[in-house]
Parts: sequence; structure tokens; C-alpha cells
Amino acid sequence: MLLDTERGALTRALEIAGDPVVPLGPNPRVGCVLLSPAGEVLAEGRHRGAGTAHAEAAALAAARSADISVVGATAVVTLEPCSHVGRTGPCADALISAGIARVVVARRDPNPVAAGGIERLRAAGIEVELGIDEDLAAAAAALNRGWEHGLQHARPLVTAKIALTLDGRAAAADGTSQWITGPAAREEVHLLRTTCDAVLVGTGTARTDHPTLTARRSDGTLHPRQPLRAVMGTGTAPSLPAVDGAGEELRLLTHDPSAALETLFERGVRHVLVEGGPVVTGAFLRAGLVDELIVHLAPTLLGAGRPAVEDLSIATLADRLDLDLVEVAPLPSSGGPTDLRITLRPRPRTA
Amino acid sequence: MLLDTERGALTRALEIAGDPVVPLGPNPRVGCVLLSPAGEVLAEGRHRGAGTAHAEAAALAAARSADISVVGATAVVTLEPCSHVGRTGPCADALISAGIARVVVARRDPNPVAAGGIERLRAAGIEVELGIDEDLAAAAAALNRGWEHGLQHARPLVTAKIALTLDGRAAAADGTSQWITGPAAREEVHLLRTTCDAVLVGTGTARTDHPTLTARRSDGTLHPRQPLRAVMGTGTAPSLPAVDGAGEELRLLTHDPSAALETLFERGVRHVLVEGGPVVTGAFLRAGLVDELIVHLAPTLLGAGRPAVEDLSIATLADRLDLDLVEVAPLPSSGGPTDLRITLRPRPRTA
Repeated sequence: MLLDTERGALTRALEIAGDPVVPLGPNPRVGCVLLSPAGEVLAEGRHRGAGTAHAEAAALAAARSADISVVGATAVVTLEPCSHVGRTGPCADALISAGIARVVVARRDPNPVAAGGIERLRAAGIEVELGIDEDLAAAAAALNRGWEHGLQHARPLVTAKIALTLDGRAAAADGTSQWITGPAAREEVHLLRTTCDAVLVGTGTARTDHPTLTARRSDGTLHPRQPLRAVMGTGTAPSLPAVDGAGEELRLLTHDPSAALETLFERGVRHVLVEGGPVVTGAFLRAGLVDELIVHLAPTLLGAGRPAVEDLSIATLADRLDLDLVEVAPLPSSGGPTDLRITLRPRPRTA
Repeated sequence: MLLDTERGALTRALEIAGDPVVPLGPNPRVGCVLLSPAGEVLAEGRHRGAGTAHAEAAALAAARSADISVVGATAVVTLEPCSHVGRTGPCADALISAGIARVVVARRDPNPVAAGGIERLRAAGIEVELGIDEDLAAAAAALNRGWEHGLQHARPLVTAKIALTLDGRAAAADGTSQWITGPAAREEVHLLRTTCDAVLVGTGTARTDHPTLTARRSDGTLHPRQPLRAVMGTGTAPSLPAVDGAGEELRLLTHDPSAALETLFERGVRHVLVEGGPVVTGAFLRAGLVDELIVHLAPTLLGAGRPAVEDLSIATLADRLDLDLVEVAPLPSSGGPTDLRITLRPRPRTA
């Protein structure tokens, strides 16, 4: 069971681990908070990406440099302390040597190379607590879902996002499409971009829409964390608009979603946001390479205009692409219509 | 404030008023429960349609025939007792003569001819309670929403129902469409039919789908209350399939939704369920004659096939038909994908 002070510390550890100053990419984001036996915060630490100290080591170092003793303290960590010697020493050993008495772990390390930290701690007589509440467990899982997906599948996690009307249109008959959805949905897309390593569009979208593919706040300023901007396809496409502080641009000269994901994975990308157009999104869906579909559904009807999804090579109803509903949430915008965010997971195709 | 016994009696009064044995149509559905000062149920009554006793009169008669005194009793009614002499005497007077001491009213009568019952009761020294909780008030309003709509607008309330995929398709590329939605959504349509006076389809749908337009239970048997079955349009169409116990069939030889509604209203219809196809639904939407749109959204993608909504005469995004979201609810079917029911109300067109 978690103490209230430990629950608070874990919330804080998740917060500092997920902070926008922490880079995404091929390393997990981890936070650590050290608590005195009385429940006071002694020190904090987080991992800041490849080659830097792990969260536990950072927290111990912070305590040391402030001359604070951590003997008998509790370490609250968002991920199982590692037991392997990588670019840094094993964190489990560091916690043991420091005299930590209890460790609260939000999530087991799914990486077989790094796992085993909990057993190592327990063997040293340290009490390890794994039972945390559902919300905190979900937050800990969400924090590194791209990283975990990469460990399991050796390719990035793919989220596809589409915006459409109730009747499935992405544009009106004359091609006008700005904006189908309201401000709340559009703001959400920018937040989503900050949680992904890369945003990907097709050359058609790059040509037609000139998207900046940046993550902006509602006041127009850039978010501190910007995704890599990938343009996929063999057609001609202009460079994306130059924006100070935007993510790097990457051209993927292929029509094959697998090949595109392989290149991105090699570059350290663990979570890609596919933002269209219909051709690219259709290619990823057809290939079974969409892990999560986020639909922004505008409560509006057009009765004509470009369909938002095309060419899935489905001729008859039995071949439909079914999805499991994960969540549906209204996105109210003041004065305007209330869009819906529908989160779904494509079912594995049986055919 | 309502006593607990009165809340229970009101729930019961709503239940008996809405019972399927009570016909829909141009008369309101009303229920009445008489309670002793100690809170025991003395008698019940409900209105069974034009020319029969009102609910209050029926309850008083039931008490009389069982030799139960109602002097000092409380009458709990779903609708304000009438004060006018129609085919029956005013119920307010009947309650006064019977010696009723208190009356709980769930909803004011919006009919100017019948209203005034509450004032009449109060003038006779009877305590009238109008404050009921939100859920009961909503149930009382829902009970007669077609009837109330008819009083205010002199035309039936129109609910349009469409079923489509996430990408707005009503059928796959080869025309297959059974079934886009799952069993839970389809069952819901049958329940919806029992709450409407008439179900309406176009001649195209009558020709292609041969719908029975009956309200069936999940075991296939017919619900006790069946809607009028209206087929609208000037095209040729076969008679609807003959089904024992099905509602009467009515041919509306017009393409004009207003004209169709006028005919239906004259026949006593106060709530119409428009079930398509796209041409008919489009005509009602275009004419601004849809009061409520119920979308059954299947979490599935087709990428091709017949759009569910067509021809709204909208050329550009600014002319879009916006709707207000009323409710969204998942409709889980065991094993299958979870459809969404999205209830919306078209916004008045500004153009």
C-alpha cells in the first residue's frame, strides 16, 4: 500500500519525468523523488536523455550536493531501477549503497536488458512496493508508451489523427476545409504533437496545405518540445515552412509505411503522429500499421466534398476495418459546436 | 419539496402513463397516483387516449369503485390537471370535489386551452407542489415531447436516424450494408420506433430494402405499440411487407417534407422517425425540419462506398449545417465493436 506522502511524491515524479524539457526518443523518461521516513521531500531527479544520469542517480547526487542524508529514506520512482551497466552504473546498486530503506516503483521495466532491479533491491533487504492505484499506473504506462512499444515491436508506435464531419468529409465540395473542427480540437492536436517524436504527412499535404507541423500554444508561441517533421512520398513537395525553433525536417522517399517507420526508428523515433492526408493515412491503415486512431469528429454535415478516408482496398462490408473504442470525449469550444474526440484501436484483420 | 413516498408515486405515475398499452398520438399521456396522508397508494389511473377518462378521473373512479375514501389524500400527477371542459369535465374540479388536500404536479400543461388547473386548485385551498427533481422533470417532459411540440409548432416533432461508419459510409463499395451497426444499436432503433407515432422512409428505401418498419423485441416478436408506417415520394414503390400486428401503411405522394408533415399531423401524428434513405433525410435536413438527429456511428472504416448523407446543397464550408451535441453514449455489443449513439440538434441556419 502506498502512503499519502508516497502518492504525492509519485505524482511529482511523473510530472518531472514528463516535463517538456526532457527529450523524447529512444530513452525512457523517468522521475525519482526521495522522501525522509517522515515523508518530507529530500531531493528529486529525472533522466534527461541518452548519456545523462538516470533519475535515481540524479536524485542521489542532488541530495549529496545539498548535504542531505538519505539513509533510511524512501525512493519513489516511475520506472523500475535498472540493474545493468550501460553508459551509467546500475541504479539498483546506487540505491543500495546510499542506504535507501524502501523503494516505490510505478512500473516494471519491460526491457529485458535492464530489468531485474526489483529483485536486486529485495535481495539487499530493501522493501519494494509495486502496488499503486490505477490512475498513477496508467500515467506511468503512458509516460513511455512509445519507448515500450519500440522494445516490443522494434518499430515506432503509430498514432493517426483525422478530422472529419459527422458525414465523413474532410472538406466541402469547393475544397474549403479550414476549419472543420473547433479551437479546442485544434489545440489538442498541438499538445499531441508535443508528446510525439515525429509528425508525418504526405507530399500531397505538404504541397497543398504548407503545414508548419510545429506544436504551438494557444497564444501562437512554440512549445519547448518540437517533433521531427517528416514528409513521406516520392512526389515533389516544397520544403516545409521555415519556423524558428521548429523540429528538424526529414524527407522519406518512399510510399511504404514499413520502410518509413524503419528509417524513423533508426533515427530514435519511438512515437509517430500521422496527420494525413487521406492517401498516407490510408496506406498506414491498409498496412495494419496504425496502433491508435484519434478522430476529431465535428458535429456538422456537408452532404458533399472530399471524404476523409479513402482507398483502403475494401470492396465489401465483410472486409471492413473494425476498431475498438478506447474513449470518447466531448471537446467544448465556447460558443461553437462541441467536437468529439474518439480514440480507437484498429482490430487485427482476420482476413 | 417532495416526500419520498411522493417521489415513488411520481415514478410510478410516469411508468403507467408511458406504458406501451397507452396509445401515442394527439393526446398527452398522463398518469395519476393517489396517496393517503400516511403515504400509502390508494388508487392509480392513466389516460388511454382521446375520448377516455383523464388520468385523475380514472384514479378517482378506481378509488370509488374500491370504496376507498380519498378525502385528505394527495394526488400525484405527471401533467397539470386540466381546467377546461373537453370531452370530459375539468380534472381540477374533480380533485376539488373529491376532497383532495395536496397535488404534486410534474409538469405544467403547455396547452393554453387546458392550462390553469394549478391556479384553480390553489384557489380552492389545495396545496400544489411543483418542485420535483431534475430526473423526474426530464422524464415528465420526455413523456409527451411530441405532443408538446405539436402544440407549439403545429407540426410533428421530427427525429432523423442515420447509421454510418466512422468515415461516413452507409454501405460498402459493392452496396453491402447489413449490418453497419451492431445488435445493441439495432435493438435501440426498435425501441425508438415504439416511442414514435410514425416511421417514415422514402420510396427508394422501400424499393431496395423492403423494410417491415415494425418495432420488434430482440426475440423477434412484435412490441405491443407499433408506429404508422409512412412511405414518402412520388416514385413507384411496392407495398411494405405485410406483417401481422404491424402499424398501418400510409403513402405520402410528395417530395416536400412540409407537405408530408402536414398530412401526418392531420392524422394525429406528433412524433415522426425519419429513417432514410439519404435522399429523404437530406430533404428534411435541407428544409430545416429535423428537430433531433440520432447518429449510430459504427467504429469501422470502409474507405469507399455510398455516403450516408448526400445532397444538402452545401458547396462551401461556411454553409455547413452545424449541430449541437446533446449526448454521446457507447452502445456495447458483446464480442463486437462498440457503436456510438450521438444525439444532436441542428442549429438554426443563419444563412
